[in-house]
Amino acid sequence: MKIPRDKLDDYSIDIVNKRQNFLNKQSKTDIFHLYQYSFNPTITSGNIENFIGVAQVPIGIAGPLKLNGEYAKGNFFIPLATTEGTLLASYNRGMKLCSAIGGVKTTVLDDKMNRAPVFVFSDARYARDFGKWVTSHFNKLKVLSEKTSSIAKLLDIDQYSASKMIWLRFNFFTGDAAGQNMVTRATREACNWILDQKPKGLEYFSLAANFDTDKKHSYINYLKTRGKRVVAEITIPKKILKESFRVNATSMNYQRGLTTTGSLLCGSVNNGSHSANGITALFIACGQDVANVAESSAAIVYNEILNNGDYYFSITIPSLIVATFGGGTSLPTQKECLEILGCHGKDKVLKFAEIVVATVLCGELSLSAAILADEWVSSHENMGRNR
Amino acid sequence: MKIPRDKLDDYSIDIVNKRQNFLNKQSKTDIFHLYQYSFNPTITSGNIENFIGVAQVPIGIAGPLKLNGEYAKGNFFIPLATTEGTLLASYNRGMKLCSAIGGVKTTVLDDKMNRAPVFVFSDARYARDFGKWVTSHFNKLKVLSEKTSSIAKLLDIDQYSASKMIWLRFNFFTGDAAGQNMVTRATREACNWILDQKPKGLEYFSLAANFDTDKKHSYINYLKTRGKRVVAEITIPKKILKESFRVNATSMNYQRGLTTTGSLLCGSVNNGSHSANGITALFIACGQDVANVAESSAAIVYNEILNNGDYYFSITIPSLIVATFGGGTSLPTQKECLEILGCHGKDKVLKFAEIVVATVLCGELSLSAAILADEWVSSHENMGRNR
Amino acid sequence: MKIPRDKLDDYSIDIVNKRQNFLNKQSKTDIFHLYQYSFNPTITSGNIENFIGVAQVPIGIAGPLKLNGEYAKGNFFIPLATTEGTLLASYNRGMKLCSAIGGVKTTVLDDKMNRAPVFVFSDARYARDFGKWVTSHFNKLKVLSEKTSSIAKLLDIDQYSASKMIWLRFNFFTGDAAGQNMVTRATREACNWILDQKPKGLEYFSLAANFDTDKKHSYINYLKTRGKRVVAEITIPKKILKESFRVNATSMNYQRGLTTTGSLLCGSVNNGSHSANGITALFIACGQDVANVAESSAAIVYNEILNNGDYYFSITIPSLIVATFGGGTSLPTQKECLEILGCHGKDKVLKFAEIVVATVLCGELSLSAAILADEWVSSHENMGRNR
Amino acid sequence: MKIPRDKLDDYSIDIVNKRQNFLNKQSKTDIFHLYQYSFNPTITSGNIENFIGVAQVPIGIAGPLKLNGEYAKGNFFIPLATTEGTLLASYNRGMKLCSAIGGVKTTVLDDKMNRAPVFVFSDARYARDFGKWVTSHFNKLKVLSEKTSSIAKLLDIDQYSASKMIWLRFNFFTGDAAGQNMVTRATREACNWILDQKPKGLEYFSLAANFDTDKKHSYINYLKTRGKRVVAEITIPKKILKESFRVNATSMNYQRGLTTTGSLLCGSVNNGSHSANGITALFIACGQDVANVAESSAAIVYNEILNNGDYYFSITIPSLIVATFGGGTSLPTQKECLEILGCHGKDKVLKFAEIVVATVLCGELSLSAAILADEWVSSHENMGRNR
Repeated sequence: MKIPRDKLDDYSIDIVNKRQNFLNKQSKTDIFHLYQYSFNPTITSGNIENFIGVAQVPIGIAGPLKLNGEYAKGNFFIPLATTEGTLLASYNRGMKLCSAIGGVKTTVLDDKMNRAPVFVFSDARYARDFGKWVTSHFNKLKVLSEKTSSIAKLLDIDQYSASKMIWLRFNFFTGDAAGQNMVTRATREACNWILDQKPKGLEYFSLAANFDTDKKHSYINYLKTRGKRVVAEITIPKKILKESFRVNATSMNYQRGLTTTGSLLCGSVNNGSHSANGITALFIACGQDVANVAESSAAIVYNEILNNGDYYFSITIPSLIVATFGGGTSLPTQKECLEILGCHGKDKVLKFAEIVVATVLCGELSLSAAILADEWVSSHENMGRNR
Repeated sequence: MKIPRDKLDDYSIDIVNKRQNFLNKQSKTDIFHLYQYSFNPTITSGNIENFIGVAQVPIGIAGPLKLNGEYAKGNFFIPLATTEGTLLASYNRGMKLCSAIGGVKTTVLDDKMNRAPVFVFSDARYARDFGKWVTSHFNKLKVLSEKTSSIAKLLDIDQYSASKMIWLRFNFFTGDAAGQNMVTRATREACNWILDQKPKGLEYFSLAANFDTDKKHSYINYLKTRGKRVVAEITIPKKILKESFRVNATSMNYQRGLTTTGSLLCGSVNNGSHSANGITALFIACGQDVANVAESSAAIVYNEILNNGDYYFSITIPSLIVATFGGGTSLPTQKECLEILGCHGKDKVLKFAEIVVATVLCGELSLSAAILADEWVSSHENMGRNR
Repeated sequence: MKIPRDKLDDYSIDIVNKRQNFLNKQSKTDIFHLYQYSFNPTITSGNIENFIGVAQVPIGIAGPLKLNGEYAKGNFFIPLATTEGTLLASYNRGMKLCSAIGGVKTTVLDDKMNRAPVFVFSDARYARDFGKWVTSHFNKLKVLSEKTSSIAKLLDIDQYSASKMIWLRFNFFTGDAAGQNMVTRATREACNWILDQKPKGLEYFSLAANFDTDKKHSYINYLKTRGKRVVAEITIPKKILKESFRVNATSMNYQRGLTTTGSLLCGSVNNGSHSANGITALFIACGQDVANVAESSAAIVYNEILNNGDYYFSITIPSLIVATFGGGTSLPTQKECLEILGCHGKDKVLKFAEIVVATVLCGELSLSAAILADEWVSSHENMGRNR
Repeated sequence: MKIPRDKLDDYSIDIVNKRQNFLNKQSKTDIFHLYQYSFNPTITSGNIENFIGVAQVPIGIAGPLKLNGEYAKGNFFIPLATTEGTLLASYNRGMKLCSAIGGVKTTVLDDKMNRAPVFVFSDARYARDFGKWVTSHFNKLKVLSEKTSSIAKLLDIDQYSASKMIWLRFNFFTGDAAGQNMVTRATREACNWILDQKPKGLEYFSLAANFDTDKKHSYINYLKTRGKRVVAEITIPKKILKESFRVNATSMNYQRGLTTTGSLLCGSVNNGSHSANGITALFIACGQDVANVAESSAAIVYNEILNNGDYYFSITIPSLIVATFGGGTSLPTQKECLEILGCHGKDKVLKFAEIVVATVLCGELSLSAAILADEWVSSHENMGRNR
């Protein structure tokens, strides 16, 4: 009952066939669709092990989405991979409305990937003194860690401490890669040198102890960024809001007050509506590491009624993990989706980040307006106080 | 520049072709792989809009994973869809080790899906009194909400309040569906009746105000469950831990102490390692709503060294959103993956939930052991105090 | 170098003198004021050990504060004990303004004290099944736990689970006492009986394992109340806001948007300004357990501009721990302060809770307005966009 | 019904008497003890307004507590002000045990007070660019802010952003003062200059918008310190633990595992037991701003069983707000208590911080051992698995 493997070449058509036959037999089900892929399995080496086929996840296109980013400018058709009906339609509606009024403005506030090893000492004083030593050896650590890659640049090292532990959060620029592996290698190199210096009182070291925090939401990522920190903003003229979204600024703002209070009370990490939907659909389509939805879905929504009655709306994604190089970005359909966005390869990752967050904004506005509109059209509209 | 649509039948081969041609022209890229799907587009109706093709996400199989669940019993081959190299290998290694010692024990602690409308009153007293009124009308609300579906059963209504608002958290059993839409319909029905009663002092009502919390992590879901609350447990004999995982219980437990402290300090919602990886890979393969990774990735890891030196390890997923019916579960490859697990259709959702969390546990153990082993084999092993 | 004690009577004037002499000698400082108390030390038995004297904490009075509570009605002079200059003046200013427009409306939403023992089983299934058993034996547990006191009433038992543990959160009505000790005794009694039934698979039990959560803020207390859950509300006519607070509703609401966003981003448990100030000052004056400020200081502020332009403001304190009986409430100055409020003794605790939260509201409005006013009077007022 | 005030001298014996008479009349209660203070009211100017008397809070002494701090060395008698019986006894027991084995080691990891003004721009790009401008003008801001005080030193300015807002967290060294007012003045001076430069796109500025976070717990303070970040540590020999605490390391460590899991699950900001008790009792006695218990009570407990079986225990207080100068520290009883500790005045604040956290550690150990011991002596000890 062992899954067939070929130690010499585990991605040949032959061994894939053997695994498929094995799976057919074991599962006693008719498997057909899983095996319909349009590429040579050998290209999946480095992306998966024990390859047997593909998930075919439906993709639709939304848009055009007009974007006024610093990297993404112009109109974009957005490929969304999902199995949830109406998701694309809802985003599409938001895109139409936002594009009609000039588009979404996007801004990348920060860009870094980190790894946070822990050093445990025999007491807290050693830990604290080690922290000072690290600060004074930053340049050495920068040189060493950057030797492991032509891309990675060590930006700074944050320090966090409790008890006799100190966590060093190495923050790197990682170019167009998401960079988790790049920073692990780079940080390890720096740490190896640190360990060679035999820091006084050091008792234990671990390259990873849940402070990064990789594939987990955390306040450290919320506050200090993991990946890209991106804002999407739009100002909707009063008149358009009424005509196109069929809501008004006062009711939008009122509903926002309630949702934010709800978020505070229930301890949610996102006072928006459903950023995870748009992010996930783009991540699957574009070969991102979809598990990063765990971190990337955190968001902060902020809105305002301007003095002239127009409605300002923004969403900030503080830990968006994206790549246009490496990982799954060069797999066949994934690459095509990135290319549709003009985002495959080098010097494209900030453009892609902007597109993701602009998409998210459109979905937020669309759903918020829908929730409100529903109430107004319902038979219970008279119940309210006519906001 | 408008995406072609066909109001009569937007899933015909013809309109799909038109959209593909449109996309080809707009994107000025060679698109081939996206259009290679093995089914008639018409079946994607209800799962996506503006269909143009599919993401082909590589799937490998891991296992066999031996499971001692209450619903999942025996050996399973696990289809994982991912583009991240080594992910499957790592889970596979964990499955091998866990299966060799008798398998993973899984337990579903709770099972419910909720919708949490907010009612805003003119003051806090009206809100409080309304809460009492709701309690006394539970049976009526149960009958009404359950009329909207043959499946949904209203279990209870939690109440949470702040200021002049009260959130009613309607908790439903939803069978094999994830149930978000089912509970929305059911809750709306109940709320419509409530509104018809013209509750004293009611000023505003919204079916959704971020308290559910859908596609967002929150403490309410952590504490009170959203979807399934599932535990996976294993006890690893001392000897096996050493021989197969190449670690010992003391060092595993020590590392756990550090990671949990790291999680506390950085405000993470998961003191485990990477549950999001396994969950996402299974979700994509099996037609789940992948955006639910935002909630489903929260986890609590607990470990112990037993008196006899054996190592107890567990992971609890408090808000796992899964389905074996509805959503994307009947799409071609998705259905096949569920069938490989014996989990397609009716009365299978708890079995599937158990498989997901057992898979997660294998990945946690595998990665934890790897992190430790790395340190021990490294040239710096002498640095530690030989735990 | 041992502190003198008298096993027979450790509160006699004689032993207190001995301790004072000992302290004089040990500390080599002139101690005078600490020893100036106006009561017989014997009355501090049950409130402190190793008594040597008193802290003299300055008390001022603020008010009158007009209250429209359900228990506290009319005008109150509020004794505040603090050493922070301007604190009282700021609260006093808020009280004056609020009272002038009809006073503060207060509502007690919930009232319960809990103890949350943990039961650890050999696996998660035993834990889950035990939970069901507990539910089915609620009446028995109610009878047993209520035997330990003439006051305590068991309201319900919440259950929370992770891994093989289950926490039972026993919620009690505790009359005019804060009730921590009362519920510990009552819960222990119930647990002793549970343990006598030898629950299947039970491996470990602890009456306390940080789930209560006593003297620590937590989301469970935020969501489910610990002590009293109280709301204070006020609606300030547009005109008054301008004339008396020298601000307008738009700017108040705008500043609230910023502070709430700041609270969300930095992970704060309170989107208000300084509730801890008023609570602490009243707690010290009135013989409360001041350490409960840790829990009691959490708060949710919600504001609205009403359709007519008036300004609605509210603050909710979800875990206010107060008493008018037991603890320090009958010590000389503490009792006098409670009596000034008409809140000493039986059937007074909800009245006192209302007064505390109304006081807090006045301080919130006063500080918020001051922050805003400062900006307007500054030379930089022209910088803004004249909100 | 107006509280008597004297605009020329509101702290004279005469006006205090007038207020007392007024209060007697208004409250219709016999007030005696409140009016028994041992000092001239005039000295309370700057500490309170509308002075009428004092709260007499019982003080006992605990100790001696042996301390191996960097600032606090030797044996200390600790004055604790509380009305909660057994609190002092419990801390005293912990002190006795800890002192007997060589005392508590304390380390100050960090020391800074902050103020975090918010700047709102017309869009996110202006906010981001402003952040860079601030970085490049740090020296100017340092010079300006430090002009406001002979003590305050600007250490650095952290930046946090969301939407079109940026919060600048000015971190200052503040000597022996808690420093909240000092940093407000210093930050305001720097901000005034910033505003004078008319930053491009600036729309709004507020010196305070809940990001500091003053008198409120938050993750920013947990991670980045507010006030002092202090660790107390102790290693208890195996034998002593058994003989004196009547517990063993395994059971202590096991109970810690449960409490930490409980803390994680319920979203608590403190996985310790009751740090708020010791902190509050010392704060009241020593003239601290007791409302800061809201922040200062957050804590992280970490424990380990060492290879030789000894037990390591530590507690970290990440945002301890203390002062030995200014505020209430020179009031009569408060000053005496600080003098008992050798902590009044200049260059004493770190010593005092160490004493506070060492005291907290003793209370943690004492309560933890008590909870465990209770289980062992109970008739139900056979139920467990004899840890």
